[in-house]
Amino acid sequence: MAGIELSRRGLCGFSLAALTVSAEARARGLSRGNVEQWGIAEVELKGPRTGNPFLDVSLSADFSQNGRVVTVAGFYDGDGIYRLRFSPPATGIWHYVTKSNVAGLNERDGRFDIRPAAKTNHGPVGVANQFHFAYADGTPYRQIGTTSYAWTYQDDGVCTATLKTLDAAPFNKLRMAIFPNGSVRFEGPYPFAGTPGHFDLDRFDPIFFRRFETYIGALLNRGIEADIILFHPYDGDKFGFDNLPAAVDEHYLRYVVARLAAYRNVWWSMANEYDVMKHKTEADFDRFFKIVQNADPYGRLRSIHHLYKFYDNNKPWVTHASIQSPSVAKDDERASLLRDIWRKPVILDEVQYEGTCPYRWGRLSGEEMVSRFWAGTIAGVYVGHGEYIEDEKHFMWVGTGGVLHGTSAPRLAFLRQILEQGPKQGVNPIDKWYDHHLAGAPGAYYLRYFGKDAPPSWDFVLPQDGLNDGMRFTVEVLDTWNMTVTKVPGVFVAKRKNQYDFADANGRAVPLPNKPWIALRITKA
Amino acid sequence: MAGIELSRRGLCGFSLAALTVSAEARARGLSRGNVEQWGIAEVELKGPRTGNPFLDVSLSADFSQNGRVVTVAGFYDGDGIYRLRFSPPATGIWHYVTKSNVAGLNERDGRFDIRPAAKTNHGPVGVANQFHFAYADGTPYRQIGTTSYAWTYQDDGVCTATLKTLDAAPFNKLRMAIFPNGSVRFEGPYPFAGTPGHFDLDRFDPIFFRRFETYIGALLNRGIEADIILFHPYDGDKFGFDNLPAAVDEHYLRYVVARLAAYRNVWWSMANEYDVMKHKTEADFDRFFKIVQNADPYGRLRSIHHLYKFYDNNKPWVTHASIQSPSVAKDDERASLLRDIWRKPVILDEVQYEGTCPYRWGRLSGEEMVSRFWAGTIAGVYVGHGEYIEDEKHFMWVGTGGVLHGTSAPRLAFLRQILEQGPKQGVNPIDKWYDHHLAGAPGAYYLRYFGKDAPPSWDFVLPQDGLNDGMRFTVEVLDTWNMTVTKVPGVFVAKRKNQYDFADANGRAVPLPNKPWIALRITKA
Repeated sequence: MAGIELSRRGLCGFSLAALTVSAEARARGLSRGNVEQWGIAEVELKGPRTGNPFLDVSLSADFSQNGRVVTVAGFYDGDGIYRLRFSPPATGIWHYVTKSNVAGLNERDGRFDIRPAAKTNHGPVGVANQFHFAYADGTPYRQIGTTSYAWTYQDDGVCTATLKTLDAAPFNKLRMAIFPNGSVRFEGPYPFAGTPGHFDLDRFDPIFFRRFETYIGALLNRGIEADIILFHPYDGDKFGFDNLPAAVDEHYLRYVVARLAAYRNVWWSMANEYDVMKHKTEADFDRFFKIVQNADPYGRLRSIHHLYKFYDNNKPWVTHASIQSPSVAKDDERASLLRDIWRKPVILDEVQYEGTCPYRWGRLSGEEMVSRFWAGTIAGVYVGHGEYIEDEKHFMWVGTGGVLHGTSAPRLAFLRQILEQGPKQGVNPIDKWYDHHLAGAPGAYYLRYFGKDAPPSWDFVLPQDGLNDGMRFTVEVLDTWNMTVTKVPGVFVAKRKNQYDFADANGRAVPLPNKPWIALRITKA
Repeated sequence: MAGIELSRRGLCGFSLAALTVSAEARARGLSRGNVEQWGIAEVELKGPRTGNPFLDVSLSADFSQNGRVVTVAGFYDGDGIYRLRFSPPATGIWHYVTKSNVAGLNERDGRFDIRPAAKTNHGPVGVANQFHFAYADGTPYRQIGTTSYAWTYQDDGVCTATLKTLDAAPFNKLRMAIFPNGSVRFEGPYPFAGTPGHFDLDRFDPIFFRRFETYIGALLNRGIEADIILFHPYDGDKFGFDNLPAAVDEHYLRYVVARLAAYRNVWWSMANEYDVMKHKTEADFDRFFKIVQNADPYGRLRSIHHLYKFYDNNKPWVTHASIQSPSVAKDDERASLLRDIWRKPVILDEVQYEGTCPYRWGRLSGEEMVSRFWAGTIAGVYVGHGEYIEDEKHFMWVGTGGVLHGTSAPRLAFLRQILEQGPKQGVNPIDKWYDHHLAGAPGAYYLRYFGKDAPPSWDFVLPQDGLNDGMRFTVEVLDTWNMTVTKVPGVFVAKRKNQYDFADANGRAVPLPNKPWIALRITKA
């Protein structure tokens, strides 16, 4: 089994034997005393261990530079240790001073001298150009997501296998839950202290979170955003984490934000399938959004995932729409409607799963999964992958992580490469209401996707926006399944055809290979 | 020309010669002293005619019955006449007492004894069953809309022709503007006193409004809802009505609501193509909604129509989404997404026009127009018609009214008949994510639409919701173009096929006529 084979390798390339505290710290992306921009500057303080430090002790710190102040909440990490984590948004000297209701933790001060980010550190991802994403340094981020809800609840061997799979996969975002599924076989630790049926909801379990952070850091080191699912409806009455009292929900959210927000790869997903959480109302999720928004000093990306009932993604605390739909990504115009309605980036986080599931939501062919990514691309939105192929030990990627058995991932790597070679501002639908199935940057760059259709040729006709007579274009045929790029000989020259469109001056059409899953890339010469 | 031919007949069946004040009053749906529920009880008072009564005089009245109070604003109708219009929501005695800053108009009181509504008066239309509409007496309202923006700005002959066309047409809603288009040839009166370039924005023109009301009443008498467009971007800098000062916008809205809200067939459309009104912001339209919502004591339906930028129809003052889209009604799943997102009724008020327009937005075939209505039906939304076929005098239905030259209207009458025979709660999409193209009421009633496709047969397979083994169904083939209903011999008997679907127990398929524009109606036997 993959997990056993791979357990000889430790996390992040360290051998398991060498996985000491310092290696773990490195794996978590922490760096003491020599912190880079968008890294994590951590202040560790000793304080009371009696009573209930999780409830009794308040701790925060103001980190400041030239009048700019970032206030971060501290958290209790067990054993009398308190931590404050700060992700510096700028280089240079940052001073800090703490506030606490405990004398020994109050008015502690110090400074960090933040060095420039390493070449591979582009900062956190944020919204860019209204519908797209970019890292803080301006580098575009083209989301190719995947989901593995409970991968951190597997044993170290499986987790290591998951990370190795990710090393070879195209994914730059992973959706993952903090709370366990009711069907999980893992026996703790859990986010709260205790065991099923005997949780102490006033105490968190730092051991759980230290391990969880290790994996957030491992994703960070791989350039993978961690889309952290804060609540979900899969508790199955086993743990009760879907039915916590309101004050515990808030305490949990604040603790999670205090621990994790400093990781620059963290995104917040309020819930998976929020609308089937029987103990929570939509107003509860509004509240959760506001708690997280207020607590997180960095404004990490925030979304919520649904089953039947779309959340109102126009609400101001939603940074992007996170969509589940079996049908939206079958048609670029369906998907682009969502963008137009919410005027924000849209990620189709769940478009069904590639696999062999007995249920119809997990039976996509690899071809169909890849096609949904391409349709989303033409719609100017982003898409997420999931795989439901159960092995003999009941591991499956979307639930447990491990290894991928499907066929879509390499083709998604091809798509990612195409997108990363595309225009910096992102790909937007072009003249979308008229069945062109074109996206790009008018006058400069176009993608045309044919899906299942296999026409023998495509008339070189482009909507007029950005075009003038005489503009010259090269055309490449992209076989999105076989991952080939074939240049069409010669250039195509734009000439006005009618009041809406330009065609090739010589009336040329683009010959196509009579196969499905073909796209064209048309670039100004 | 149709308008001349028809001018021998007056409005609403009265000869023009007989169109005296009392006939006009009847045409407006007014009825003094003998008012029915949801009719208009009007109080006429004499007051000051000096100064500027539009600005100087405030007037309202509380109409009350058993502790229920409806406050209506009065309005100045010129010549020293002030009116208060009340549409009684219940039968029996209603007392009123006025309030005014003018002594002679203040504390005037009286009563109306409201009789039951006539058989043809079902009350105003409101939202029913979340996604649908019904009259106040519970009768379902199946919207089959059309648009004629400036029909009231044509001469009496053309207006009469328009009404005669409507007499023979299936439409039960008409979208129409208060303000003139820049291209209109009509020479006043206008909503404001004066003439282009010389409007007095502090005074309305009662003559304009009396004529406009005549037509609202004429629609009411025909069972047609008047979706009144309060603003639009087609002024062309000729009148300046798209660029009024904020205080004038508000004064105008309050005057319109005071005059027209008592007509039970009035709906409020804040704007046509609000997003291309260059002098107004989205916040202006939020404000307009709130002014109308606060001023209208009956809560008439409220929407707004866009070109590119969807309004946020989740806002609480929007009763239903009013959509323009060339592409949404090509695919039932696109259309049903809108319903799911806004959780309100959706009317696709503009799906392009049937016609021969030189622009691509007005070139639909009759077949395609009808098909868009059917796709909308399967999506559980409603659709609007428009026709752009210009005659030699430059009349065209969507702009000027007059006569219809297209081929869709009789087929829309057929659709309306089908819908009105359908389940009272309305038709909703069924298992929509899986390409069934089915709508109805699970277990009882189904519509399946094939659009352009002309398959030779359809496997009798229905999603499981509401089904049990042994349930019996009759099937009718609807030729939506040729307007025929053909019963398929025998009955179909449901038998579970798999975990999702039921099929016919004998594996029967429904033979189809190898033609496009076919639908099926499947009814529990």
